[in-house]
Amino acid sequence: MKFWNENDIQAIYHMSDAINDIETLFTNMNAITQTQRMVISTGTGAKSMLYMPCIHKDKQIGIIKITSITPENPQLGLPTTQANIIITDIKTGKHLASLDASYLTRLRTGALSGIAPKYMSNSNSQSLGMIGTGGMAYEQFLGNIEVRNIQNVYLYNRSRDKAEHFKRQLQQAHPNLDITVTNNVQTLVQKSDIINCQTQSTSPVFEAKDIQDGTHINGIGSYRPDMKEMDNQLFPRASHVVFDDIEGVKEEAGEFIEPHEKGIFKFEEIDGDLKSIVSKKQLLRQSCEAITIFKCVGAAHFDLAVAIGAYEKLNKTPQS
Amino acid sequence: MKFWNENDIQAIYHMSDAINDIETLFTNMNAITQTQRMVISTGTGAKSMLYMPCIHKDKQIGIIKITSITPENPQLGLPTTQANIIITDIKTGKHLASLDASYLTRLRTGALSGIAPKYMSNSNSQSLGMIGTGGMAYEQFLGNIEVRNIQNVYLYNRSRDKAEHFKRQLQQAHPNLDITVTNNVQTLVQKSDIINCQTQSTSPVFEAKDIQDGTHINGIGSYRPDMKEMDNQLFPRASHVVFDDIEGVKEEAGEFIEPHEKGIFKFEEIDGDLKSIVSKKQLLRQSCEAITIFKCVGAAHFDLAVAIGAYEKLNKTPQS
Repeated sequence: MKFWNENDIQAIYHMSDAINDIETLFTNMNAITQTQRMVISTGTGAKSMLYMPCIHKDKQIGIIKITSITPENPQLGLPTTQANIIITDIKTGKHLASLDASYLTRLRTGALSGIAPKYMSNSNSQSLGMIGTGGMAYEQFLGNIEVRNIQNVYLYNRSRDKAEHFKRQLQQAHPNLDITVTNNVQTLVQKSDIINCQTQSTSPVFEAKDIQDGTHINGIGSYRPDMKEMDNQLFPRASHVVFDDIEGVKEEAGEFIEPHEKGIFKFEEIDGDLKSIVSKKQLLRQSCEAITIFKCVGAAHFDLAVAIGAYEKLNKTPQS
Repeated sequence: MKFWNENDIQAIYHMSDAINDIETLFTNMNAITQTQRMVISTGTGAKSMLYMPCIHKDKQIGIIKITSITPENPQLGLPTTQANIIITDIKTGKHLASLDASYLTRLRTGALSGIAPKYMSNSNSQSLGMIGTGGMAYEQFLGNIEVRNIQNVYLYNRSRDKAEHFKRQLQQAHPNLDITVTNNVQTLVQKSDIINCQTQSTSPVFEAKDIQDGTHINGIGSYRPDMKEMDNQLFPRASHVVFDDIEGVKEEAGEFIEPHEKGIFKFEEIDGDLKSIVSKKQLLRQSCEAITIFKCVGAAHFDLAVAIGAYEKLNKTPQS
């Protein structure tokens, strides 16, 4: 059995790999077997443990991702989410590897936030507004700049200091970008061709009225029924709504569960899942003015795609 | 994260530890949270993947055991069952260790086959009959000799060569034991104070009429509804029947499901689970003549007990 930590994986497996591997998996979903994820509430500290197994029958590889969620960790300088993936060869039954999966989880979530605008946003989108600059934000940024020629980035965070810190991180890695921190969400929303929300918010993080025609919005917060980033009034204006995993959204995403219950939004009205959009290989939107929304909650097969991809690359690299 | 292989664990964690740790866990079952195990059928090679998570709230430790079952592996000289355990600190959410759990699984199953006769068999039991000498047999032997002063061991296997090989293994480690390989199950059954069955059989491996008064029987095969080691006619003669996990037996153990359906045996008639027997801290049997039966199918909390026990010992040992 081999063991790879976050640094090993970050050195060799990048956003372009993750986007490519997830898109490739979408073309062969019949090979996938997965169960509903298991959750154990632990009460204190790590409030819950999540277990997400998934099998790729063609590649003869099985994985399980084991995730702890410890909401108070950031106060101690530790990450909220800590994940590990075990990879098993289902031909021989041998357990092949243990991968630190915290980076892989951020990366696959960022990859989904790249794949969605690749097929949904205006192809000339140049400005990206990011609401929330916490632990998931960097790979969200990477996903967007991978698929669109972004020139301007607007950052908003409840704590401005954190947004400024994030700006320095981005600027160092991408000196040609024009990056602005703002206290004014309205300005951010009005100026952004793509808006990417990654907060723990329980109430809308922007007002629907401020959204300009032609905007694409990615939402990756609201992964619990009590959480909400998008304003209910946005949905009647949206030409297209796409989910990464409809069953997951119905169970977890408060920002869709609540308007569905109120009759403002109907799950039956979505334009399918990300897989079906990708398989059409063309831009979903019919006009430059369309407002499009992608909602992401995650699923085990996305972890499978990046775990196999990373494993295959790591396995070709001599270990130090 | 630390990684320990089978040799690391075998060097430091033994049958006496496993028996002690499982008995200790039985006194504090309120601290345990576990879900039903998840199974994914994979079709070829590893026919199924099993996922068994369990949390110890007092120790603030969570584990998941990931097991592959590859029935055709023995033909390739590989084990049928290959297991790995991930240990997580549920206070900080940190994944602490990966343990090769193949030995730990055999050991905890052997420990259960020790704890049962400790509280159920006649305390002067001297002879042990083992039916089946495959991959699980050695730790089954260890469990029994840990709790009773065994002098004579009788071995039966469908392939006599394997039984002879197993005899040499036992004799080398325990030169004072009198060990006999037999082709005659009837003789084995008649001469043994304790009978331990560990086969993949789908039909009874002995006849009930041959069982002598006073015998204790452990059954660890029959872990699928189509499997059966014990003769239906045995149950009406048994004074006490104890399970390790009643829900598991009802779902998996063909040798009890079938007689229950036929009305020969009723699940309502069992004398409780192993935990309740241990908690009484006294011999269950009322007479030397009683026939007693223990049926074992396994459960995640047994894995938890030995994983925590091994982890605590390994963690105190300097790593080479």
